[in-house]
This record gives sequence, structure tokens and C-alpha cells, in this order.
Amino acid sequence: MVLLFGGSGYVGRAFARELVARGTGFVAPSHREVDLLSEAAVREAVRAVRPEFVINAVGFTGRPNIDGTEKERLRCLQANTVVPGVLARVLEAEGVRWGHVSSGCIFDGTRADGEGFTEEDAPNFAFRHAQASWYSRTKAMAEILVSESRLCTVWRLRIPFDEFDNPRNYISKILRYERLLDVTNSISHLGDFARACVESLVRPIPPGIYNVTNPGRITTREVAEAVRRHGLTDKAFEFFESERDFLAAPGRVKRASCVLSCEKIQRAGIPIRGVHEALEATLAAWKPA
Amino acid sequence: MVLLFGGSGYVGRAFARELVARGTGFVAPSHREVDLLSEAAVREAVRAVRPEFVINAVGFTGRPNIDGTEKERLRCLQANTVVPGVLARVLEAEGVRWGHVSSGCIFDGTRADGEGFTEEDAPNFAFRHAQASWYSRTKAMAEILVSESRLCTVWRLRIPFDEFDNPRNYISKILRYERLLDVTNSISHLGDFARACVESLVRPIPPGIYNVTNPGRITTREVAEAVRRHGLTDKAFEFFESERDFLAAPGRVKRASCVLSCEKIQRAGIPIRGVHEALEATLAAWKPA
Repeated sequence: MVLLFGGSGYVGRAFARELVARGTGFVAPSHREVDLLSEAAVREAVRAVRPEFVINAVGFTGRPNIDGTEKERLRCLQANTVVPGVLARVLEAEGVRWGHVSSGCIFDGTRADGEGFTEEDAPNFAFRHAQASWYSRTKAMAEILVSESRLCTVWRLRIPFDEFDNPRNYISKILRYERLLDVTNSISHLGDFARACVESLVRPIPPGIYNVTNPGRITTREVAEAVRRHGLTDKAFEFFESERDFLAAPGRVKRASCVLSCEKIQRAGIPIRGVHEALEATLAAWKPA
Repeated sequence: MVLLFGGSGYVGRAFARELVARGTGFVAPSHREVDLLSEAAVREAVRAVRPEFVINAVGFTGRPNIDGTEKERLRCLQANTVVPGVLARVLEAEGVRWGHVSSGCIFDGTRADGEGFTEEDAPNFAFRHAQASWYSRTKAMAEILVSESRLCTVWRLRIPFDEFDNPRNYISKILRYERLLDVTNSISHLGDFARACVESLVRPIPPGIYNVTNPGRITTREVAEAVRRHGLTDKAFEFFESERDFLAAPGRVKRASCVLSCEKIQRAGIPIRGVHEALEATLAAWKPA
């Protein structure tokens, strides 16, 4: 039995689909059923379910997007930092293996050598970066908190996308945003992500931090062109002149565009298809809302 | 009626003494009586008491000192960041004025011009400083959260001391530590601090951030010499060669030594005696445990 927290969210539903596809039984209590800010409540739930492992897919990424986190900072801190902190304490004490959905958004750009950031590199878009967002800081602090649990596998997700039209889906955002910012990123197919994450606990591979993106890197312009090529839209995409131009709008926070290396999880024996292959398959299977 | 949270702590007891001295009625519920991590519980307490103002003296500074915060990070985050975040939401909505005990520990050194940091300067020992402690980050994030409440006065305390021997008291630490690190700091006489803070809400002065230290700056060596001169000890103080030497011990986190300007609160009409005057009076009145 698996205990899935945050199962009704965008990322949590991908985990639920993955568990269903595997025929793995799971329970996904709601916030009302288990107060994840309370160690006592979490302990009680864990002891009742006696799960093989726990998945924490709780997170707050803002409404309608990351800009919204700056307007709901307390909620963002509670969901993104306090909840994993509570889970780390309880699950370590109870001896239960678990995984936590982190984010690649604690990095910006590439390493100095032009390569993607590995799990050994310290986050550069969390504390030291003057423009780092509240969101990035909450996610980076969570990684510090959960590092106290030797039973925790940290999965870094980066810009989720798949074939299901949804406001959180990168493809949907590209289709709907009036203007785009052309940046280079590692991105994560949500189904591939959930599959790799669950697999990492089922085998299991050693706990620790794993970047879970589709191998490779891709630019916004490449994605936009592929979206047109597959006939999802015939609109001519417009791009911001520069990041400064993009950030000029009020209430907008700097995005952490970054390239991550996902060699570590692959070396651990969990395959993930390349980013261009994943994108092509996604667009070919596109299901409008 | 005043509602005092954290009234049983080291700083909270100074607030309690100040309120008693003024003949101001107050209630100081314990954690068990009011769960400060719960908006509903805080709202209920505020509605029951209907306070003229609220004082948040809740904080976690580690055991036996700041190094301990790195071993209890979740508790530190909850006490130092989540609690003020919850208070900001509830008290702003309820229309109740309040004060929050922050810390000067989010600054390191002096301004580039050699002057003390003012309330206009951005913290430099919180996010951007690679060595910033978890504690400093939790306090800096709290200042961001409470800035959303226009009814909040933020009081930055810095290295509390007074005539009562206590493990948290700077004088007691100087008496007990085997070796000292010679640094320059602004420091706060705890009684002066509580008096100025309560006064800031009683008058009231405009909400916002205030550095509440005794005017001036002082070195560890100066304090140690004064301690000997007043006969509190006859031991020959030993000093670390350098900060690097000090930090070489395992589990030790970098201290934020800093000079703060406290002109703003004085300009607002609240006097505070100079640091050397406060130190001399404290040592003359010293009460060993």
C-alpha cells in the first residue's frame, strides 16, 4: 500500500495515474482528512495505513502561475517547506521510505562549463541570487529539511508537460500566453516523471536527490515551432525582446530557466526518453481541453 | 489589554516585566493554550481577548546557542517564520496593531560606508550570503511575511544583555565561554529593548521596521574588559585568532556580527541610552545566578 499526499493536485494526479497503471493500491487523503502541518496527524495516518512508501506531491506553485506565490507567501511556505519538514521528522522516526517532489527552479542557467547542473551542485537560484523568488526559496529550504531524513528520495521536477491540456501544462501555457520568453530549459514529461519517481521507490534506488527531467535541453522557440508543426495552433508566436522586457510587467517574478543533468537517475538504472522524443510524442497525442 | 505571545521565553519575559512595570494588563497564553501555527486558533484567541495590541515574542534561537538551530530546523522555521506569518494574516484581517520581535542577525558587518545598517538597507546575511545560517534565513523570511501586514511594527533585537545572569544573556556568555571571538556589534539591553518596543505601540509610532539597539557599537574585547573592571570575574579572557579559527569547530555556524543604526526609532521620539552607558549600568547592577 502506498500513501500519497497531495494526490488531488496537478502533479499528484500523475502519481495516482501511475499507481493505477501499475495496479498498486494507494490511499490519497485530502488536507481535511490529514492535516499535514501537524506531526501528530501525519504520524496517525502513517500508522493507520502502514504504507510500503509515501509520496509527497503537495506543493503550491501559485495562481495562475508562479507570480501568484508572491501573493500567498504563507501558504506557499506551509505547502512547500513545512509539510516536507513535518514528513521528514515523522517518516524518519517511523522508518518509512518516501519521496518528495522538489523543483529544478532552484537553479538558473547552466553550470559555468555550459553543462546542466548535477545533484552535486548547490542551488544558485534560492539564497544567493538577489532575484530569487519566494517560491524558489521555499523549495530550496525544503531540500535542506528533507536532507535530514535518510529515507527520503528527492525528485526535482522541471516545467511539467504532457498531452492533456491544462493550465499547469507547459504546452497549454505556450498555446495561451500572448508573448513568450525564449529561454533554454530542461523539462519533464509529467507521465515520464511520475513513472521514474515511483520506479525509484519500487526498486528501490538509493535515497538522495535526483533530477528527473527528460534528457537534453530545449528552447521555448523550439517548443513553439513544434506546436505549430503539429497543428495545435496556427498563430504566429510573439516573443519578448529580452528577459528585462518580460520582467517589466508589474507583479512578475524572475523565472529560473535552467538546464539540469539527469544522468544520475539514468545511471541508477531508470531510463527516461529524450526531451525531443517526449515532446514529439506528446504533440502527436495532443488532447485539447 | 495586551496579548503577549511567547511570554514564557527569554525575550517574552522582558516584555512581561515591562507590562507589569507599566501596570498594563496582559494575557500570555502558552503554546498549549493557543496553537500559533493555526490561523483559526489565533483568530479565536484574538477575538476572545480583544487586545489593544499584540506582541509576538515567539522565537527559536537554538540550544545551547545559535548552532543548535541547525539541528532543529523545522522547529526554527515554525517558530520564527510560520508563526509571524500566521499572525500577519489574522491580525491584519482583525484590524489589530501588533509588534514582532525580529533580529539584527540578518545583517553582517557594516555598510560599505562604515556606518550601521538602516531600516532601508536590504538584509545581507540571509539569502545572498553563502554562509548565512538557517536561523538568519527564517528571520529574514519572517520580515517579508509580516511586511504584508500594515499594522505590524518590526523590532530588530541584537544580542540581548542585562543584569540578570542567564544562558541567553551576552554578559553571561562572555563569562562562560572558554574563548571569545572579537567582533564589533550593536547590542540591545533587554529591558531598554522591551521598554522601547512597548512604547512604540503605546504612543503609537508609525508601523514598519525599527532597529532597537542601544546607540553605538562595541567590541567583544571592550565588553570583556568592562566585565573584569567591574569585578564579575578575574579570569584572563582568551580570544580566537580569527573568525576562521572560531568556525573550525564542528557544528558551528557563522555569526552575523553587525552594526545597526538605531536613528529611526529615536527620530520617532523614543529615546534609548547609549551602548556604553547601558553596559556600565548593567555591570554595576550585576546579579549572579
